[in-house]
Order: sequence, then structure tokens, then C-alpha cells
Amino acid sequence: MVKVGVVGYGVIGQRLADGVALQEDMELIGVADVSPTLPIRALKEKGMPYNFYLGIAENLPQFAALDIPVAGSLEELVQKVDIVLDATSAGVGAKNKELYAKYNKKAIFQGGEKNSVADVFFHGYANYENGLEKQFLKLTSCNTTGLIRSVDCLDREYGVEKVAITIIRRVADPGDYHRGLTNALQIDKAPSHQAEDLMTIMPHINATGILVHTPVTHGHIITVVATTKKKINKEQALEVFTKHPRIRVVRIEDGFQGNASLFRYARDLGNPRGDMYEIGLWDESIVESGNDIMYAINIPQEAVTIPETIDGIRAAMGMQTEGVLAVAETNKYLGMGKWMKK
Amino acid sequence: MVKVGVVGYGVIGQRLADGVALQEDMELIGVADVSPTLPIRALKEKGMPYNFYLGIAENLPQFAALDIPVAGSLEELVQKVDIVLDATSAGVGAKNKELYAKYNKKAIFQGGEKNSVADVFFHGYANYENGLEKQFLKLTSCNTTGLIRSVDCLDREYGVEKVAITIIRRVADPGDYHRGLTNALQIDKAPSHQAEDLMTIMPHINATGILVHTPVTHGHIITVVATTKKKINKEQALEVFTKHPRIRVVRIEDGFQGNASLFRYARDLGNPRGDMYEIGLWDESIVESGNDIMYAINIPQEAVTIPETIDGIRAAMGMQTEGVLAVAETNKYLGMGKWMKK
Amino acid sequence: MVKVGVVGYGVIGQRLADGVALQEDMELIGVADVSPTLPIRALKEKGMPYNFYLGIAENLPQFAALDIPVAGSLEELVQKVDIVLDATSAGVGAKNKELYAKYNKKAIFQGGEKNSVADVFFHGYANYENGLEKQFLKLTSCNTTGLIRSVDCLDREYGVEKVAITIIRRVADPGDYHRGLTNALQIDKAPSHQAEDLMTIMPHINATGILVHTPVTHGHIITVVATTKKKINKEQALEVFTKHPRIRVVRIEDGFQGNASLFRYARDLGNPRGDMYEIGLWDESIVESGNDIMYAINIPQEAVTIPETIDGIRAAMGMQTEGVLAVAETNKYLGMGKWMKK
Amino acid sequence: MVKVGVVGYGVIGQRLADGVALQEDMELIGVADVSPTLPIRALKEKGMPYNFYLGIAENLPQFAALDIPVAGSLEELVQKVDIVLDATSAGVGAKNKELYAKYNKKAIFQGGEKNSVADVFFHGYANYENGLEKQFLKLTSCNTTGLIRSVDCLDREYGVEKVAITIIRRVADPGDYHRGLTNALQIDKAPSHQAEDLMTIMPHINATGILVHTPVTHGHIITVVATTKKKINKEQALEVFTKHPRIRVVRIEDGFQGNASLFRYARDLGNPRGDMYEIGLWDESIVESGNDIMYAINIPQEAVTIPETIDGIRAAMGMQTEGVLAVAETNKYLGMGKWMKK
Repeated sequence: MVKVGVVGYGVIGQRLADGVALQEDMELIGVADVSPTLPIRALKEKGMPYNFYLGIAENLPQFAALDIPVAGSLEELVQKVDIVLDATSAGVGAKNKELYAKYNKKAIFQGGEKNSVADVFFHGYANYENGLEKQFLKLTSCNTTGLIRSVDCLDREYGVEKVAITIIRRVADPGDYHRGLTNALQIDKAPSHQAEDLMTIMPHINATGILVHTPVTHGHIITVVATTKKKINKEQALEVFTKHPRIRVVRIEDGFQGNASLFRYARDLGNPRGDMYEIGLWDESIVESGNDIMYAINIPQEAVTIPETIDGIRAAMGMQTEGVLAVAETNKYLGMGKWMKK
Repeated sequence: MVKVGVVGYGVIGQRLADGVALQEDMELIGVADVSPTLPIRALKEKGMPYNFYLGIAENLPQFAALDIPVAGSLEELVQKVDIVLDATSAGVGAKNKELYAKYNKKAIFQGGEKNSVADVFFHGYANYENGLEKQFLKLTSCNTTGLIRSVDCLDREYGVEKVAITIIRRVADPGDYHRGLTNALQIDKAPSHQAEDLMTIMPHINATGILVHTPVTHGHIITVVATTKKKINKEQALEVFTKHPRIRVVRIEDGFQGNASLFRYARDLGNPRGDMYEIGLWDESIVESGNDIMYAINIPQEAVTIPETIDGIRAAMGMQTEGVLAVAETNKYLGMGKWMKK
Repeated sequence: MVKVGVVGYGVIGQRLADGVALQEDMELIGVADVSPTLPIRALKEKGMPYNFYLGIAENLPQFAALDIPVAGSLEELVQKVDIVLDATSAGVGAKNKELYAKYNKKAIFQGGEKNSVADVFFHGYANYENGLEKQFLKLTSCNTTGLIRSVDCLDREYGVEKVAITIIRRVADPGDYHRGLTNALQIDKAPSHQAEDLMTIMPHINATGILVHTPVTHGHIITVVATTKKKINKEQALEVFTKHPRIRVVRIEDGFQGNASLFRYARDLGNPRGDMYEIGLWDESIVESGNDIMYAINIPQEAVTIPETIDGIRAAMGMQTEGVLAVAETNKYLGMGKWMKK
Repeated sequence: MVKVGVVGYGVIGQRLADGVALQEDMELIGVADVSPTLPIRALKEKGMPYNFYLGIAENLPQFAALDIPVAGSLEELVQKVDIVLDATSAGVGAKNKELYAKYNKKAIFQGGEKNSVADVFFHGYANYENGLEKQFLKLTSCNTTGLIRSVDCLDREYGVEKVAITIIRRVADPGDYHRGLTNALQIDKAPSHQAEDLMTIMPHINATGILVHTPVTHGHIITVVATTKKKINKEQALEVFTKHPRIRVVRIEDGFQGNASLFRYARDLGNPRGDMYEIGLWDESIVESGNDIMYAINIPQEAVTIPETIDGIRAAMGMQTEGVLAVAETNKYLGMGKWMKK
């Protein structure tokens, strides 16, 4: 059993902990954070299903006042685990890295950190082998993670030469107040970093794109214009998308009218927090553009990187040398793809 | 065991079904709807935890094509149950009533129906006794249900003579596309129907108010200016709010910055669908206005009427003659108030 | 002087009237509508700069009560003019057409009507000649009008073979309550009608695209991936965009961060209603995608079709046989392009 | 002719300059800012109707590069004027005050500065006399300015003892990207500072209130529960509101459905920037709450403080000793109240 610790118990950290707890070949030793935030209060209200470790000793009285049990310090957590999933705010991970290095522990950082924090910029499907036995991995960001799922499966089947993407970005998560946008579409300088990140992971593909922020919270939508080695039609694209366990092909006609439908559906499924690990891909969005294929995907930003991060544990810890087997194990424990057998 | 059926499996119907399923003295016989909507597809994907009955026989082939088992017709469901919870779209309930009457079954309608559909306009805390043994009840709407919780407890303790409310209404639920508002605050003619509804339930109180629609989805906020029989201070108000199992007193300082914080917290608690049965009430919103007391509450519109509807079952079926005991039973099975013991 | 009447005095009709009033070779005879809407009340408050004609005689008392002078009936207006600009709600124009035909008058319909309402589907730059001397024209919709401006100028200079567009659509105008979207991105079945409309106007180009509705009001953003006959670089694209009097090239660096910046800037310019006739095009959005060129434009939906509609008057009335001269006259009277000489 | 300078040419500064330029007994000497922002670029594009003075000499090359004429330094502007309207960002005004004091000039600060920056916290209607001949005034903020208009006129006619307000605050201006809120209602700790500010200006009134931020841009809505010395009815309230030249009584029935309707109407009126100096007050919002009166107003946040600031010039410069005459002069030059004679 690989021992895992989660550092930073916010939007991503909570979901990483839940995802790891489902892996039968991993053990979640505990989670760490620095103050009694709402997620920590929720953890307490749920009866402390996970042990909590404290990153700032001076804040202990706050936890005592709230009767929240503290299992130890962050440093103690690090010592107890084989690998840390660092989901702290951007920049903090780079500092924490010193602690992980001090105890010679492995760590996986999230997309907010700089690439230089890690030995490898990692995606479970697209470059699993690169992560094998490495000490420090950095996951692709949420948009890039989901985008690569769709491009990678097209690439494996038909060969992809070029992609031009338009990211219609949700600007905040549900419950965010520290960032937001009101009645505006905001454009970033092109090319988007997601396109450049895709090229880092899949260097044989030419990628560029434009990103526009929109005032919504329930998932990014990305349109992709992909140039394949030889022209494919809609049915050929649909076929590879449909059999991918981390892609959920949906239809507008069935009621999946937009990003919020996928969120509502995940809630109605009873998924914890209304989360969805799969990206959505709209059947009716797929169109042929001359020799290119164009389609639209939905990125559930809060949960989408969880599976690939867990793939990263398998790679870094050498639990599985074959990427295809590693992702299958992650999928199995997360229950992904079950819905395909309907 | 009282046998319950839920007719209309949308936003409210799904939650009613889940709530009834938790009551140890009730049995959920099944749910009914007319077409394979997303909630029905989610029910199927979850493995049909509830039996499904079909309201429109001609749509059977649609269900067969999707391999969704149909347990019978709506009429059959009605025959099998003691009481129906009707959560259909506004106006449909009035038509369905004929069917319920035909088989001499009891029914509880939701706030969208006209008051005339029912014998009693009902709220579990404020007028439980009026609902006893009645055939047809109509629940207060979501805003009125939550508002009355807060006014009723003040009234019981200190006597309330008058309330003036401002409803800052969320205009749509997460995942709604058929209604919405974009970058506008829309005002309704005053007085708001919620104030008038409060007076129907609590005729000894003078109530009026103004309603403004806002482009958000995660809960209405209502400010209340309440005139009590004799002046009370903030601490006195806080005391009665704090001990109410259907009111969750929260603090901005702790991170509950607005309606979306309560939704996020409910998700982090692992509540199914991220739902919350309690209204939120902000400690730091309570202020004295001369002899009046003013405060703000949050109404989680998707789930707030579930407890009072279940109270309605207890009343209509005569399961419990004392309101105070009835609501306590509902609360126990829904797990309400557990969080107060932290 | 060509005599012009505007029928339908809403968002578009008001702006058509203002635009025509600026043309020194046209005379605005009057505007028509059916009830005392806010735009009519504003017309009255401004002192009736335009004569008003009434489409529904029975509503005359409403106008009398408000002391709004009525110059005559819709039918009288039609008789007095050479050409009608019909800006009524979708579907009404088709009915009004009978009246225009009865008096053998010309008319230009807006994008909401079906193509079959007109002899020609028209764009001032892309197919001016097709509109010459025709009785009934239909303008391209706002998105298509702006999109074609950018594609047409590239096409004339370098030849365009194919475009794949992503329309990030504003879902309502400022002040709309009858439609809206709240916290959702809604996707339409592809291909978008705008891509298909472009092909109707420019049949030598292969066009497809995906449209996503977003909850904002100040302008659509479209990203375009254009395949030119031979590869062009960013500078070449920028050059043709920069010299187009109906395209305003802007820079994020200068403060044009999104669609709302262009609206704010138009307000600060003192443009009536804060309108802008030009589409915006972001310099920093232009990127090369292999042999394709990609860029993003902003469509000010309320005003963008005004210039092309006035071009349509010149075409239908045969005021000018050369498209290039016709658009130059429209531009001169609307003051377009003045800002380029800074 | 009183010589006026405007320092800070942003949302408020631009409108102050336009308002002063309309006063026939004042002369706008110029406006000052520190960098070539969009408003400055718009000033240039309009042909420099106002002289521009530069606050940071080192930025002169940026202006030269854009061919924007600079008339002198901020310090020179201050020397040339009798009074400065400081509309810089919060906190900057306090620093600028030293410069104004150095040359013994008068100045009026906007609501963002601390009260201590000025000798008097000022409102044209409610405490004009306090501002007479003072060197430094601070205007009430936008919400407080509009709120006081409505409370002051009730108070003068009927006596007001107490108000309890709910501020439904627009969170950003059109075109803001640096602040925003997405799909959330955010609540502030009560009481709101606007209620406390009202008490500073009108110390005989007891005021409290709750403020909720909403994700919209076109005007705050405030509901007011006012306790008058003796009970008044709706007609009595309506009468005093209707005759106030800075209050526009509107009707939902006529099409004024919310804050965005007032903005749209101002655009359709041809008001520069679509601005409105008047607050809106909905006829159908006025209701009696026992002995109190309740109503809702709309605050057009970008322009509402302009009239009262100009009143402040009249007070500080001693141009008029009677408040009632001073506001009448401001109103006349701004064209306020003209619309009442319809």
C-alpha cells in the first residue's frame, strides 16, 4: 500500500483526498492545511474521516477552540508518507518542495505551480512513461488535462498534426468571492498557455489558441479544430471519443444543453460534491471543417485532474510500468466508465 | 409504514423522494414522471434505487429504447400509495388532483399550485395542527417556508407584530436554461406574494415586502425587519435562531461570505446533490433598528421545502398529532440539527 | 433625396433611424411602432425629433393619454417613403411585406426574418452588387455581418478557402428581461447558422462553427480560424484589418480587456447610446496556426448592422452602382474611420 | 466664473468634468490624470474638448507617442483653479490634499476617501449650509447620496425618525474587470456604512441596514423601510417623491422592469454615456408596513453624485448661501426636472 498525504485541503485537495481514499492499493495517511477554513470545518462536521495535520503550529489554538483534532504537524505527515499530493495555492508548492526533498519524498504538484518545480510535466494518458520513478511531477492544469484526453485519443487512432483551440473559460468556482467577472467577456493575449502546455506534453503537435474568460462557474468549454493526418469524418471521431472512459459523450437532444447540465446531472447522480471526473463532449458539436474535425468539450474544473494525478502516483511510485494498465486501475477504483455500459 | 409516492421527478421531486426514503416510518413506493429527462437518466445510471411509474403511456417506447425499467402507470402508483407528493410543474398538480381524488388518496402540492388546490396552506412549524387528517395540503413556497421558520421562532418566544421583508431572489436553479436573467435586477410589484402568504399562515402578523430578482442560482437572501411585541436585542434574537434545528446560524468571519458559501459547504459536507435543508442566518447581519430587529437569511431553494413537506405527511396521515413531535421526527430522520452539537 | 421609413422602433429600429438621419442624401420620413414602449417614451421626452406613425389604430388613445403626437398610420408612412427599413420582431416583417408590396415599395429586413422574405441576402462589402435595384433585401444578422467584414477583407487580399468559427454569444441586450441565461454556457447544435449564412453570401468559402451562449450583454466575441490560399503571417493579417474603416483594431495592452471595454470606450467617446458601428479586433489575438491564421473579433450587436443596412438602401435604390463607393458614402456620413487618422 | 479643475479622469472624473462644463457660472479649466488610460484616449479621439494636465511628469513620453497634447502639470492645474474636484482612487485624494492646501485651494473629495480628509461630509439637499465657505468637502457615496435624496424629502414634509435599508448593490461598473462577482450574493457585516453615513448627515434619524453585493453593473437598488413621525399613506409618499427634480418616479407597468431599464432608457434618451443623474423610484414598490412606509429606489452609481458635487462647489465657494437656490441652479444647468413637465 502506497502511503499518500494531501497538502492543501481546498477545492482540489479535498477531491484528491477523496480520490486517493478510493484506491485500494493506496492509503491516505492524512491531509494538511494551515487554518480552520470551511473545508476543515466540514471535515470536522463529518466526523474527521481523514486525519488532519497542521502546517502552522501557531494556529493550533484556533483548532482547539473549535474542537478539531490535529494529528500532527505538516512535517510529521510528510515523514509518514511515500508521496505527497501538493494542492496548495500557486507558489506555495515550490516552497513546500524543500520539505519534501528534505525527507526524500516524492511529490506531485498541481497546474498552478511553475513547470520548473518538477522533473516532469505529466498527463496520465499522453506521457505516463515520462513520469516513471520520477521524484517530482507536475500535473497539467484542468483545461489542458481535459483537452489532452480528447486530442490524445484522436492522435492514437488517426494521428493529429495541429490543433487550434478556443477556451471559453469559467472564471471562478462555485463559492469563490476572491475572483469574479461581471457582465464581461475578457480576452487574454494569445496564444493561450494551454495550447503551449499541450505542445510540451505532445511535442509532435502544433497547437495554438485563444482564451476568453466568461462569468460562469460550472465548467470550461473548449472548441477544438483538429487537423488529422488524413481526413476523418464525424463518425470516426465519435467512435474514439465514445470508448474513452474519461470522456462522456452527451447529446443536447437528451437535455445536456450546456456546462450547467453536466453539473446538475452529476448532482443528480449522487456524485460527492456533484463532481464529475469525465470531460463532457457534445455529439452534436462535432462537425467536419474541410479536412479538419471540430468539436466542443466541457471541462469540470474542480475534479478533472483527480484521475490523472492518481495516475501520477502510479507512475512516480513505479506501481505500474504500463500507462495503459495504470490508467485502467485508476479508472476502476474511481468507478469511471461504468456508465458506458448502459 | 405510510406508503408514499412522488409524482414529478424534477428538482423538487427528486429531493422529496430522497427525503421520504430516509424516514423510517414511511415507505417510498415509487416516483412518476412523463419522459426520460436527465433526472430519470440519472436514476437509471444509479441502478434504479426507486421504482419508476410512467404518466404518459405513449412514451413507453422511449423508456424501452433506453432500457429504463417502468414499474407501471401513474394511475397504478396512485393506487398503491397512501399519499402522493405532487411536485409537477405549476398547474399540472391541479389536474392530477382529480386522479388522487378518484382513488380517495391524500396529496401534498408544492408552492407553485394555487392555494385553492388544497384544503390547507401548510407549514410544519407554524400551523401543523391545521393540516391534521386533511386530504389535500399545499406547502408554502421555498422563500415563505424559510422565512416563516425564522419569524415563527421569534414569534413563539417574543411575539411578532409586523415584518417588512426584502427578497433578493435567485432567478434560476443551477442547470436551468429555460429561465434566466443577465446583468439586471428585476423588481416585482409590491407587496410580494411571500409576505401575503406569511399572513395567510400567521394571520396575527402584518407583513409586506419587496422582491428583486437577481442573476444567481445558489439561494435567495431575505432581509427581515421584524417588530416584536417588546424590544429585543441582538443576543435575544440570536438565542432563538441558534437553537432551531432548521436554522443554521453562520458567520461571515468563518468564511460564510454569501449564498454560494453555503452551497459550497453543503457540497464539502458530502450532502447528496450539495443540498442543505436548513436556512442559513448570518450572525453579523443581525442589527437593532430602534425597537425592531433586522436580520438576513439564506434560502436553499432546491431543498428547503423537503422537511416541511414531510411534516405534512405526518399531519395529513395523522401519524402524529403534536406538531412539535412531528417536526422532531422529521428532523431526526433527515439528520437535522446534528451539526448543532459540535 | 431618398425617402426612408423605419418600421419597428426597438433596439435596431432606433439605431437605423439615427443612422439614416445622418445620411445627407436620405430623408427620414418617420418611424412606426404599435404601442408606447420605452423607446417611444424616450422619443417623446426628447421632443419628437422623428415623426411617429402608428401601426395599430386602436392604440391611439394610449398615445393621446401620454400626449405623444401621432403623425399618421403605418400605411400612410409606407405610402410616403421610397424604402422601408423593417426592424420589427422576427416574423412580423414577413407580414408587413404584403403592405410594402401593395404600394410597390422597397424594403430591407433584418436578420431575424427568414431568407425567403427577400430577393437577396445582403452584405454591403461582400455582395453589394447582388442587391442593386432589388425590391426586397434581407441583412445578415449581427454576428454574420461583423464576421464577414473580417473574412471579406482577408479574402480580397489573400484569398480565403475555409473558416472554422467559435461564436461566444452574448445572450441578451442591456435592458432585456424577456431572455437571459444565468451562470451557464449553453451550446447549440453545430454547425452554427452564422457559418452557413457566411457560405450563402460567400459561396466560395467552406465555413463551419460552434456557437456557445454566455450570460453577458456587451458584444459577442468570435474566434476565427481562417485558411488562406497561401500562408500569411500575423503582420499581413493585421495590415488588412487595420485599414478597414469598419474594423477597429485594439490592444489588450491599451486597456481593451474584453467586450465591455469597447462598450465603455464608446460611451466615453460620447457616441449616442454608447454605440459602436465598428467591430473590434484584438491585435494580440492574432496567431498563426500552421498555415492558418486565427484571430478574435468583437461584435457590438446593437449597432453593427446599421452601416450595412444603409449600404442596402444605396443598393436597392440604385443610388450607387459601385459597392466600394457606396460603402464609402455610408462610412463618411456615419463618421466611420475618422478615428483611424489618429 | 468659478474656475474648476478635475483631478482623476476615470468613471467619476469624466462625468464631473461634463457636469461642470454645463454650468454657466463655472469654467472648467482642465482635467488631470497620470497615464493614457482609455478615457484619455477617448478625450483625444474626441478632439480634446478639455485641456489635459499630467500628474506624473515621467509619463510625458507616453502622451507624446500617442500625440495627446498635455497642457501642463497637475500642480499647474491646481494653481489655475479656485476649486478642485478630486475623483482619484481611494486614498490618493488624501495625498493630493497636501497640494491643494499648499496653494490654499478648495477641494471636494468623493465618497471613497475617509471622512477625516474633509471639514464637512456633504449632501446638497440635506446639509448644504454646513458646506458654506469650507475649504474641504467630502461627498456622500453614490448609494448614500441617492438614499438621502429620498429620505430628506420625506423628512422635510412628514418627519422621519428611523430607516432600515437593504442595499442590493451592483458589484462593478460596466467595463470593470478588476472587480467582479460570479453567481453569488455576498453579504457584508451589518450595519452598512451607508446607514451610518446617513446618520452623520442627518443625525436626528436612526438608521441601520444590510448590504448584499450582486453580480450586475447597471445600478444599485435600495429598499427603505421608513418610520415617519405620523403614519403616511402611499399617495402622500408618492407626492413628495414625484415633485423632487432628482427623483424620477417610474412604473413597472410602463416598462421600467428593473435597474437595466433605467440604463437603457437613459441611452435611448441620448444622454451622454447613457447616464442618468436622477435616482429611479418605482411607484409600484411603495407599500405601507403598519405605520411605516416602504419603497425601492435605483441608484445610477456612475452619475448620481455629480449634481451634489456641483452643489458642493456652490457651497464651498459661497456662490449661493441658500441651499434651495443652489440646488435649483445646479438642476437648471444639468437639465434636471425638465422631464417632469411631460
